[in-house]
Amino acid sequence: MKFFEEVRVGDSYELGRYTFGAEDIKNFARRFDPQLFHVDEDAAAQSHFGALCASGWHTAAAWMRLWVNYQRHRTEASQARGEPVPGYGPALGFRELKWLKPVYVGDTIAYRSEVIESRVSESRPGFGLLTIRSTGVNQNGEMVISFLSTTFVERRPGKP
Amino acid sequence: MKFFEEVRVGDSYELGRYTFGAEDIKNFARRFDPQLFHVDEDAAAQSHFGALCASGWHTAAAWMRLWVNYQRHRTEASQARGEPVPGYGPALGFRELKWLKPVYVGDTIAYRSEVIESRVSESRPGFGLLTIRSTGVNQNGEMVISFLSTTFVERRPGKP
Repeated sequence: MKFFEEVRVGDSYELGRYTFGAEDIKNFARRFDPQLFHVDEDAAAQSHFGALCASGWHTAAAWMRLWVNYQRHRTEASQARGEPVPGYGPALGFRELKWLKPVYVGDTIAYRSEVIESRVSESRPGFGLLTIRSTGVNQNGEMVISFLSTTFVERRPGKP
Repeated sequence: MKFFEEVRVGDSYELGRYTFGAEDIKNFARRFDPQLFHVDEDAAAQSHFGALCASGWHTAAAWMRLWVNYQRHRTEASQARGEPVPGYGPALGFRELKWLKPVYVGDTIAYRSEVIESRVSESRPGFGLLTIRSTGVNQNGEMVISFLSTTFVERRPGKP
């Protein structure tokens, strides 16, 4: 885990991969997005998607899961080395969330986040703000989701 | 269900309410956002939130569920009257998604969507584009989530 001062624009995080199985897609969609092309293979085959595909909110939530896991591993690694752990978050929201391609059954999405802007917070002394672009790319190299987020990161104690 | 020509800027949809129970909050967060303040009451009490609260993605997904239900009821009502049903969607993405206040256990969020812009699609003949502002307000009148979306809506057949 890095304090604000050690984060550079261009730093990127390979968060890992998430494979969307048919039951996982349908379970999520039954609860939160029960459009036919997310819950029924036959209806999906007749839709403009042509086959069962994941809710966009599912594709976004999978990023969140991998992001939390990644930050947790970094925190634990810092703690294991006896290093201080900076405070992160919360996220203030998301911008420009785009679902660029459908995510079909069996697709494996590789998620990645990259720091694209860094500035000191004026509202919250002791913290910086990072703007992060996150993307998901399928096994064919096609980007399926993209969004921007801004999150607080603690500054190293003792810095002016 | 209305075709593009019958939708007016300012039209609004009261989508209904969603109450966030503790188990629902924890079940969602265990799968998609396992930060301690979303999955553990004691840890949440020690966090800056002060109590267990829902993942922001859960708050957004609950909107999606109510939106799909609402559109389905409108579609079924049109069909019951023997009226033609316009094609809707898909959503292209979301913008300016803001989590403005935490959603705590027992909070009931009233979701509402309002058309704020309307224009003919240049890329997809026969369709218009609606920009919609969606919000969730808790039982104390505080807005907890807000975002913009743009979605395709079919034009009435036979219109130039």
